[in-house]
Amino acid sequence: MKEIVFTTWLGNMAFETSIDGCGIKMATDPKAGGNGLGPRPKPLDLSALAGCTGMDVISILQKKKVIPTSFRVLIEGDLTEEHPKIYKDINIIFEITGPGYKDNQDIYLAVQRAVELSSDKYCGVSAMLKGTCTIMHEILLLNE
Amino acid sequence: MKEIVFTTWLGNMAFETSIDGCGIKMATDPKAGGNGLGPRPKPLDLSALAGCTGMDVISILQKKKVIPTSFRVLIEGDLTEEHPKIYKDINIIFEITGPGYKDNQDIYLAVQRAVELSSDKYCGVSAMLKGTCTIMHEILLLNE
Repeated sequence: MKEIVFTTWLGNMAFETSIDGCGIKMATDPKAGGNGLGPRPKPLDLSALAGCTGMDVISILQKKKVIPTSFRVLIEGDLTEEHPKIYKDINIIFEITGPGYKDNQDIYLAVQRAVELSSDKYCGVSAMLKGTCTIMHEILLLNE
Repeated sequence: MKEIVFTTWLGNMAFETSIDGCGIKMATDPKAGGNGLGPRPKPLDLSALAGCTGMDVISILQKKKVIPTSFRVLIEGDLTEEHPKIYKDINIIFEITGPGYKDNQDIYLAVQRAVELSSDKYCGVSAMLKGTCTIMHEILLLNE
């Protein structure tokens, strides 16, 4: 399937990209000539990763009738110092909250299986990043 | 350098991510349970690529005193059919408009050098994607 994304320079170090009819602005750090109009492009890659694996995990959990009250994906990416600056190590923390979730082994195993399926089979953004970096996963279950 | 991105589930197949204090919503296709709140995560990777290489190229051109009147980055990504769906071939078209730019060999060489520097040296998003895919570049110069 072919996908097309248009991105237009807004002046200074800012761009606007259009995907599925949604416009998103990007800019560098203000100290590098950006104007704070939007996020820097590289961490947007981490957001794409969070969205891609997050959608896999919540959708697999829903099929298992595990419906959390809240679900957050925290991603830490360690950027190299030399050019081209890339994420060499990425840590994904799935923070999942629901009634009696903390120390619940059944919920933990369901989440662990969903994370494995996303990481090994479904998540395209993970698969692309794994070409150049190591991705680790943590699961944090919290009571509502 | 460590970067951290938080992404929160909004219900259905939608998430909101926060980078540099900017909130961006993501969602799947409406037919897959999304609600049209934002773009899908995978093409967001192409936007990150456009922003990262676009900022390199415009910044190198500005140093060469080449200031276009408009500058667009069009990215076509060919997604695999099987899981995990990844972009195997990406084509980046730099569409650069300015007075007398069409058929101007000096401008073309300046843009070509800027694109090479971004692709080979500076663009971290390109470097990450190249781990799993082939990236091609085209330059299209247009008169104002």
